[in-house]
Amino acid sequence: MRGLRYSLTSSDGSLTGRHPLQDLLKGFVLASIFYEPSTRTSSSFEAAMYRLGGKVVSISDVKSSSVSKGETLEDTVRTLQSYCDILVLRHPEVGAAIKAAKVLKIPLLNAGDGAGEHPTQALLDAYTIRSELGRLGNLRVALAGDLRHGRTVHSLARLLDLFEVRMDFVSPDTLSMPESVLNDLISDDYEIHRTLETVLDKADVIYMTRIQKERFDDLKHYEEVQNSFCISPELMNLAKPKMIVMHPLPRVTEIDPRFDADPRAAYFRQMENGLFVRMALLAMTLGKA
Amino acid sequence: MRGLRYSLTSSDGSLTGRHPLQDLLKGFVLASIFYEPSTRTSSSFEAAMYRLGGKVVSISDVKSSSVSKGETLEDTVRTLQSYCDILVLRHPEVGAAIKAAKVLKIPLLNAGDGAGEHPTQALLDAYTIRSELGRLGNLRVALAGDLRHGRTVHSLARLLDLFEVRMDFVSPDTLSMPESVLNDLISDDYEIHRTLETVLDKADVIYMTRIQKERFDDLKHYEEVQNSFCISPELMNLAKPKMIVMHPLPRVTEIDPRFDADPRAAYFRQMENGLFVRMALLAMTLGKA
Amino acid sequence: MRGLRYSLTSSDGSLTGRHPLQDLLKGFVLASIFYEPSTRTSSSFEAAMYRLGGKVVSISDVKSSSVSKGETLEDTVRTLQSYCDILVLRHPEVGAAIKAAKVLKIPLLNAGDGAGEHPTQALLDAYTIRSELGRLGNLRVALAGDLRHGRTVHSLARLLDLFEVRMDFVSPDTLSMPESVLNDLISDDYEIHRTLETVLDKADVIYMTRIQKERFDDLKHYEEVQNSFCISPELMNLAKPKMIVMHPLPRVTEIDPRFDADPRAAYFRQMENGLFVRMALLAMTLGKA
Repeated sequence: MRGLRYSLTSSDGSLTGRHPLQDLLKGFVLASIFYEPSTRTSSSFEAAMYRLGGKVVSISDVKSSSVSKGETLEDTVRTLQSYCDILVLRHPEVGAAIKAAKVLKIPLLNAGDGAGEHPTQALLDAYTIRSELGRLGNLRVALAGDLRHGRTVHSLARLLDLFEVRMDFVSPDTLSMPESVLNDLISDDYEIHRTLETVLDKADVIYMTRIQKERFDDLKHYEEVQNSFCISPELMNLAKPKMIVMHPLPRVTEIDPRFDADPRAAYFRQMENGLFVRMALLAMTLGKA
Repeated sequence: MRGLRYSLTSSDGSLTGRHPLQDLLKGFVLASIFYEPSTRTSSSFEAAMYRLGGKVVSISDVKSSSVSKGETLEDTVRTLQSYCDILVLRHPEVGAAIKAAKVLKIPLLNAGDGAGEHPTQALLDAYTIRSELGRLGNLRVALAGDLRHGRTVHSLARLLDLFEVRMDFVSPDTLSMPESVLNDLISDDYEIHRTLETVLDKADVIYMTRIQKERFDDLKHYEEVQNSFCISPELMNLAKPKMIVMHPLPRVTEIDPRFDADPRAAYFRQMENGLFVRMALLAMTLGKA
Repeated sequence: MRGLRYSLTSSDGSLTGRHPLQDLLKGFVLASIFYEPSTRTSSSFEAAMYRLGGKVVSISDVKSSSVSKGETLEDTVRTLQSYCDILVLRHPEVGAAIKAAKVLKIPLLNAGDGAGEHPTQALLDAYTIRSELGRLGNLRVALAGDLRHGRTVHSLARLLDLFEVRMDFVSPDTLSMPESVLNDLISDDYEIHRTLETVLDKADVIYMTRIQKERFDDLKHYEEVQNSFCISPELMNLAKPKMIVMHPLPRVTEIDPRFDADPRAAYFRQMENGLFVRMALLAMTLGKA
């Protein structure tokens, strides 16, 4: 991946219009099927395909598609298989990606299935940690925010569990990591925290997620929680000088924009890595890498 | 068409990312204008253009387009003509395609105009019959389901009428083929049936269409009809061993998925032919085939 | 620009699928972000990118995008910057384009910001005048219709003000050119009119805009105004034989389609110029022209 990144980017590390791999997937067509909207994920898959010379057929307006006429997910993906070489699927139900893959002869990439998994996000997150800190072992990673509903942190926890990473799960009591995920972890070398402060000076990575107002009955409780799960320049004075803050974005109040200029703010670089990792995944699954 | 198909596909007959015609329409831009949603038709036109190296500008969200500002269809297609080389139009009104074509200097392909015509579907259906059975004459073809409202079967009946094909029109009494279509037929060598059973052992092709609940005042009547217009493995024991079942898709209850594995189930291959036939049509109308 | 046009088009002046610049932006990806719908502007930017060999990631359904999750405009454009080489932004708020450009390292083209500016439209309008009449000076240009709410005429007035153009502002009393625009003009060589008739025989250009029903409390007043701001063949008998009528389109009642065949009807050629001017802008801002 490092090699890929360096061969693609100009001297300042950003991607330029032209690069040696720009025709790698010429002639290939991706079907991008989003039953739920996700600007970031769908745009980055589209751009990844374009960066490699491929094309994209997008199905995003599901209410106006065949699905609303009662078609099964299986028939819908079979249709797109007739026209395209690879599928990307975002679906609101857990297990949808596996259900779809079972009837397909072409590759399918899971772009998120309900509260289930979001594997390409986990891969880009892991790549970002390695790229920023030079290693994926001997690290302490704090996952913070809404750990209950976020598929992103569920997938990432399962992936980091395969490496020598010590995890801290930091969340309000009502939004803690589900037992089902904790039970999946091979390592029991993790800690559970209720506030960011208690892990701040130990973390090599703080992975923030958004806490949604809708999750709370009591608005007052939401406001308390929201205030204590917010990365600010002041709070970050207590953190290590060499560590990173990550976020799958979009963020609302959980990271103060005044922190953006801090070198430890890795979330925009993380987002850019989404493009590189998805380029790599498309090339690999189409047999070109 | 056969030649095109074979030159495009790999040894197992499926289309691969790269093929000799992948740059045939390089530099050409298709405007795909869908006033009504249709995942299948719009995706296959898009993919067809991409497979030949062209690009696509899609206008699908008509409510948010200039149309909602009171623009005429003629002005809308004139606009797209300024930017593109060829147009594909789906519109809810009968005659819309002709109205649009009259003001254009570039080719327009009718992707369905209300209850009017769906000519590219009829062409891919005819191609499928020839491709599957080796001929387009000396055949008995049963069109079944909702023959009243389906433009697909209207276009197909008119097209098959030009060949030596004997047609059976099989539908509930209230959903029979309109007089206007029957009057258009040159041949009067057709039969009208009320149940599938009566034509099952004679048909070389059964072309199923969806019966929509909305068409019935009486839910009980709908359920009766629905049950008797359903292809199942059991029913198909009564059919010829060498024949095919087609469907424009999406299907709901009218074909049991247990029949999918039967070699006579041609509807997924039919769908794939939609890509090939639309590639051919784009190449021909742009003067490249 | 002239040179570009002639190198791109066939002998009859229309653009053909293939031309010498078709790979100029190969490898480049445009992010097209439309917070408000605009078929014409978004299609022409898309087609312009395609005509030069580039690709386009479109974000149009803003309600279903990250924005609805509370993301700031700045974060949204930063995201797209990670994946793409250039941005086009349409936004309902005045100043949005500048706000977005401030956080970007890649070029941004303003495709309209509320009642603010629509600079690419003004450029294509100016190009059309020069292309049709052979010069951009020594001209009398009447801007007519709703001058109060139309950003198009605001941008065009500011641009023409830089050339030796005498402007006539023709509108109903309640829809006259805002003081803020008039104050920006360097030249005070303009006149204000209430009816088309008074400028008709003097104008080298009549630039019509749409008068929207919603702007009027009194329907009767709307109808009066609408009738007197309508270009018809009869009315145009009073105009110069060598002059042009322009319109940003879509039109509703303000230009009678019977006038379309008149050589002075320049609005469809103007629309086509939108493609050429946007091709030029994309090439220039990406350092390829």
